[in-house]
Amino acid sequence: MFDSPDSGRIPAPAATPDSSDTTRERILTAAMEEFALHGIAGARVDRIAKLARTSKERVYAYFRSKEALYTYVATRELSVIAEATQIDPSDLPGYAGRLFDYFTARPDHHRLLAWGRLELADTEAADSDPTRAAITRKLTQLRQAQQAGQLDPAWDPADILALVNQIATTWAAQPELTRAATEHAADSTTAARRTAVVTAVEQLFPRAP
Amino acid sequence: MFDSPDSGRIPAPAATPDSSDTTRERILTAAMEEFALHGIAGARVDRIAKLARTSKERVYAYFRSKEALYTYVATRELSVIAEATQIDPSDLPGYAGRLFDYFTARPDHHRLLAWGRLELADTEAADSDPTRAAITRKLTQLRQAQQAGQLDPAWDPADILALVNQIATTWAAQPELTRAATEHAADSTTAARRTAVVTAVEQLFPRAP
Repeated sequence: MFDSPDSGRIPAPAATPDSSDTTRERILTAAMEEFALHGIAGARVDRIAKLARTSKERVYAYFRSKEALYTYVATRELSVIAEATQIDPSDLPGYAGRLFDYFTARPDHHRLLAWGRLELADTEAADSDPTRAAITRKLTQLRQAQQAGQLDPAWDPADILALVNQIATTWAAQPELTRAATEHAADSTTAARRTAVVTAVEQLFPRAP
Repeated sequence: MFDSPDSGRIPAPAATPDSSDTTRERILTAAMEEFALHGIAGARVDRIAKLARTSKERVYAYFRSKEALYTYVATRELSVIAEATQIDPSDLPGYAGRLFDYFTARPDHHRLLAWGRLELADTEAADSDPTRAAITRKLTQLRQAQQAGQLDPAWDPADILALVNQIATTWAAQPELTRAATEHAADSTTAARRTAVVTAVEQLFPRAP
């Protein structure tokens, strides 16, 4: 269900390898924007093609279907996030802060993933193989940190990962409470919201001494 | 933007008040199901009408538009949740457990609200007046509990509310991690996931002595 573009159809013959690569990248950038705004069902391949300065046919030449394009973009985004935020089981508060920063700077990236959770629910495409592998790797890292005495072994690694992710995205995921905080919090800055998130993770999963 | 059905158009004249009420309730039940599955853009009013054993025209007679119907259903759902789970600032772990139970039993209700967050983002309809009022009420309750010494005053009430809601919905919001927990957790039961959620809230916001 994860459609590798390399194993897919061949790009239009007129394109040189270099110009193909740029077109493909432009399609991915345009797709990210379109999917973040409208979701999978709401996205229009002709808008993606227009934004990428290419044709609808060309988009389908690289990516079999709209759904395959979404899965490719979302899977790549998850690996970009993992790379940018680097889970560190001995410093989960630091990791939560990096996740908070990532999504604060890129609310559209949070939306991109949120659509998939709703629209692909209970389909085979809901978890791409790379995503499942990434989760399994993180669980192993957490388990090893517990064995090394860096993390309380009383928690199940699955609970730790789910709680840290969830707490880190407290504000990205609840726009209605972000608006309420702007109006009602004593300190309504983003820095104050970040401190709350990092403090919560620190209290639950303290940094290793 | 919150369209009260009472101030809307008059139902078809043939309907007696009683049968109108039942039709209206059937529309709301059908709309809940349709919106939870397909979101706002993806929902079809004719499917809602069919499921409610009425006509599309009748649906529009009660609710001005598909969006107004969604806002009505979502706002009512939020007040049903508030009623069913009863925030208690002196026992936030208990409240988190009730929220967990509510959404575990009704994953479609979580989906219903998640669609609105994505599809109504940055529109005026994103926060209905009753929803904003409910948030403000909860913040006041939390502030009063802090003043009464039942809750650590170092936290901003906006952070408490956002964190507790977010932690309580850790599993409803992250289906990919629920699947990972089922596969990898030492104890893969729902009860174990609930314990993790309640324990996390208890460590951050302990019950008042």
